[in-house]
Amino acid sequence: MPARSDRMRLGAFLYPGGHHVAAWRHPSAQADAGVNAAHYRRIARTAEAAKFDLIFLADGVAVRGEDIDALSRTAIRYVGQFEPLTLLSHLAAVTERIGLVATASTTYNEPFHVARKFASLDHLSEGRAGWNLVTSADPREAWNFSRESHLAHAHRYTRAEEFVDVVRGLWDSYADDAFVRDRESGRFFDPDRLHLLAHEGAHFSVRGPLNVPRPPQGHPVVVQAGSSEAGKALAARTAEIVFTAQTSLEDATAFYADVKGRMAGFGRDPDHLKIMPGAFPVVGRTESEAQDRYGELQDLIHPVVGRSLLEQLAGADLSAYPDDALVPDLPETEGGKSRQALMLTLARREKLTIRELYLRIAGARGHWTLVGTPSRIADALQERFEAHGADGFNIMPPTLPGGLDDFATLVIPELQRRGLFRRDYEGRTLRENLGLPRPPHRHPAAAIRAPAAP
Amino acid sequence: MPARSDRMRLGAFLYPGGHHVAAWRHPSAQADAGVNAAHYRRIARTAEAAKFDLIFLADGVAVRGEDIDALSRTAIRYVGQFEPLTLLSHLAAVTERIGLVATASTTYNEPFHVARKFASLDHLSEGRAGWNLVTSADPREAWNFSRESHLAHAHRYTRAEEFVDVVRGLWDSYADDAFVRDRESGRFFDPDRLHLLAHEGAHFSVRGPLNVPRPPQGHPVVVQAGSSEAGKALAARTAEIVFTAQTSLEDATAFYADVKGRMAGFGRDPDHLKIMPGAFPVVGRTESEAQDRYGELQDLIHPVVGRSLLEQLAGADLSAYPDDALVPDLPETEGGKSRQALMLTLARREKLTIRELYLRIAGARGHWTLVGTPSRIADALQERFEAHGADGFNIMPPTLPGGLDDFATLVIPELQRRGLFRRDYEGRTLRENLGLPRPPHRHPAAAIRAPAAP
Repeated sequence: MPARSDRMRLGAFLYPGGHHVAAWRHPSAQADAGVNAAHYRRIARTAEAAKFDLIFLADGVAVRGEDIDALSRTAIRYVGQFEPLTLLSHLAAVTERIGLVATASTTYNEPFHVARKFASLDHLSEGRAGWNLVTSADPREAWNFSRESHLAHAHRYTRAEEFVDVVRGLWDSYADDAFVRDRESGRFFDPDRLHLLAHEGAHFSVRGPLNVPRPPQGHPVVVQAGSSEAGKALAARTAEIVFTAQTSLEDATAFYADVKGRMAGFGRDPDHLKIMPGAFPVVGRTESEAQDRYGELQDLIHPVVGRSLLEQLAGADLSAYPDDALVPDLPETEGGKSRQALMLTLARREKLTIRELYLRIAGARGHWTLVGTPSRIADALQERFEAHGADGFNIMPPTLPGGLDDFATLVIPELQRRGLFRRDYEGRTLRENLGLPRPPHRHPAAAIRAPAAP
Repeated sequence: MPARSDRMRLGAFLYPGGHHVAAWRHPSAQADAGVNAAHYRRIARTAEAAKFDLIFLADGVAVRGEDIDALSRTAIRYVGQFEPLTLLSHLAAVTERIGLVATASTTYNEPFHVARKFASLDHLSEGRAGWNLVTSADPREAWNFSRESHLAHAHRYTRAEEFVDVVRGLWDSYADDAFVRDRESGRFFDPDRLHLLAHEGAHFSVRGPLNVPRPPQGHPVVVQAGSSEAGKALAARTAEIVFTAQTSLEDATAFYADVKGRMAGFGRDPDHLKIMPGAFPVVGRTESEAQDRYGELQDLIHPVVGRSLLEQLAGADLSAYPDDALVPDLPETEGGKSRQALMLTLARREKLTIRELYLRIAGARGHWTLVGTPSRIADALQERFEAHGADGFNIMPPTLPGGLDDFATLVIPELQRRGLFRRDYEGRTLRENLGLPRPPHRHPAAAIRAPAAP
C-alpha cells in the first residue's frame, strides 16, 4: 500500500431531514428541510465549524417510485427539495472553507452545462466545488426528458466516459493566466491562451470554449459513486473521490484494493483518489441511548415505505413475497448495479426475510450503519481507516439537524483526540484540504506562444 | 389605456463591469467582475438598498463572436463569467427583498431542468425568482450542444411556446398545500394533491411530476425579451415582464400599445404584463460632467471591438465597407430579429456611417442612451413612462459598480421626490412588488378530492 495521510477525510452527506427513511417524522429532524434555506444555511455552518472536508448532495431528476402511497410517506425520494447546484451556490455565500459537492447525471445533462455550472460554483466559492458524476439509476428519469426508456447500463457508462473528458476539456478552455485584464493596452484576455476544444466523439460534438475562466482549482474535484465493474473502471481513470456503499470490513478492504489497484494502469498515483464509503452513525452517550434512538427511528418506518424502498433499490417487484419470506434471488436490471449486488449479498449472507432486509436498509439505504457511543463509533471508523478499507467516510446523519449536531459534538472531538481528524482546515480550496494535486492545464505553458502585441 | 400603477418599475441589469463595451477599462468598473463574487454581493446590496424591483442577468451559452482579436478586448461577450442561476442563488443569501431574474434559453435546455432550477431559486429566495425566456440568437451555441446548426427562428419560437407551457405545467406538479408533513399520521404529502403532467407534444414528452414543491410565487415571474412578431405573440400570451430595446418615444409607445393590445386576444389583463425597455444612463452632476463621462468611455472603444459588436448584433459581415461608408441594407438572418431591425431603423433614420453606428450602439448595444443630469434623466424616464411607452425600465449601468452607485444615489432620489418610484418595498415577493397576481393552480382546489385517510 502506498503512503497516505494519517488523517481521515469526512464528508457531510446532507439529505432533507436526514438519511433515515422516517427521519422527517422524528423531533430531531426539520420536517420541511427540503425547501428550507435557513435550515441548510445552519447545517452548512455546523459542518464547517466541525471541519468536515465537504458537504455532499445526491440528486435525482425524477420522483423515485411509482407507489404513490409509499412516496407520499417519505421526504427522501426526491419528492420535493432544492436542486443541488442552486443550493450549493447559495451555501457558498455563508461558508468559507468547506467543500461543496453536488451530483449531476451524465445521462440527462449536456457536458457544456455541467462544465459551466461547476466552474461557476468553483469561482463563486473560491475553489471549493466538486462534481459527483452519476449515470442515473432510475428509469423514470427518461420520461422527464422526452425519452421513452432509460439508457442501458453499458451505454450510460460509455457516454459517461466521453462526458467527463469533454467536461475536463472545457475547464481547460483558458490557461490559468489567460485573463490579463490590461486596462492600458485594452487586452482583456490573451487570445493565445484560449483553446477551442473542438471535440468530436461518439456521443458529443462540443466546440467550446467554455465561457467561464479556468476554475480556481484548475478542475473542480471529480467524484464518482458507481461501484459496478464499469463504475470502478471509470473511477480508476477519472475520479478523485469515490463514494461507495460497503457494509463489512472485508468488502471495504477488497473494494479499496480493487479500485486503487486499477489506477496504475491509467498512470495514476493511488493517493490521488480518496475512497470514502458512506457511514450512517446513530450516536448515543451510552450504548442503550444509541440503541433507543435507533429504535425510535425504526419504529417510525411504515411497512409500505420499507417495502417500496427495498423494491426501488433492488429494482424488482417483490409483491409476490410476504414480509416474512426469505429474500428471493433477483434478476439483474439496467438500474444501479452496485446497490442491487449489495442487497443480495447482505440478504444471502444473513438469511434475511423481506421485512428484516427492508428494516436493515431503510435506515441507511444499504450503507454501513453504526449504532453506539462516540468512542465505539470512532473505534469502528478507525479500524476501517487503518485497515485500508477507506481514506475517509461520507457521514450520513440519520436526522438533520440533530444527527449532524450529535456527530459534530460527540464523535469529531473523539477523532481529533486520536489524531485521526483535523482541528483546522489545512488549505483554502477543497483540493488543498483533501491533499489532491491541482490538475495541470492540458496545454502546457511552454507550448503557448508569447502574447501578441496589443 | 387601462389603469395602472403610478409608480415605475426598475430593474438593475447587471453585466460584468458594466454595459458599456469598454467599461472594464474604466476606473469606475471592476475589471474582474465576471468572476468576482464579492463584487456581485456588493452591487446586489446596493440595488436592494435603492429599492430596485429586480436584478436582471442576461445569458449566452457560447462566446459571442469569431474574431478572436475583438473578443479578447471585451468583457461582455460571454468570454468568461459566472453562470446566472448559480450566481443568483448565491446572491439570494445576501439579499432579502429584491427580485432575481436570470436568462435561460429554450433552445439549448430541457424544460424539466429549467422548471426545476427556477423553482429551486424561488424557494431559496422565498419568492423572488424570475425566468427570462430567450430562444438564443447566436448560431455558435449549437456547436456546444452537438448540433450542426442553429434552429431556424420560426422553429425556435414554436419550441419556446411549448417549452413555457411545459415549465408552467411542471410548476403545478403539486398543489400549494400538498406538503402536509403530518408527523403523527406519517403523511409527508397528500397524494391527491400531486398532479402528473403527462405532456406529449411536438417537441417534448415530459411526464413529471417536478421534484420541487410549488414555488412560493406559484410560478416564478416569466420575462420575455424578443421583440419580433413571434416574440411579441409569445409575450402577449405568456410573459409578465417584457424587456425590450426601444430608442425613440414613438417606437416605445407603438411597441407598448402593440404588445398590450394583443393580450385581450389571450384573455389577459394588460396590467399583468410590465413592459420595461432598457435604459443606459450616463449620469453627471452637470450636463458637461455627464458628457465628459460618456466621452471618456467612448474614447476607450477599440475600433476592432466596435465593428465586431456591430457585425454580431446585425448578424452580417461588414468587412467590405470602410468605417466612413453609410450602413448598407442588410439581409435578414436567423439570429435575433428584433435587434437587427433596430440597427437598420436607426442607421437609416439618421443616415449613419459604419463608425457612427458602432459608436452609437457600442455603449448600450442598441438600447436607449441617456446622458445628462439626474433631473434630465428623470425627465426623460418620466416622459416615457407617462406617455405609456413603458411600465418601467431595465437600467443598464455603463460601469459597475460606479454607474449603479451614480444611478442609486443621484437619479433614484429624484424619482422618489417626484412620486414616481417607491421608497420601500411593498411586498415580500417579486410578484407582490411588481403588482402581478399569483397564478392560480391549473387544477382548482375544488376538483381535488378530500385527502385519503392515512
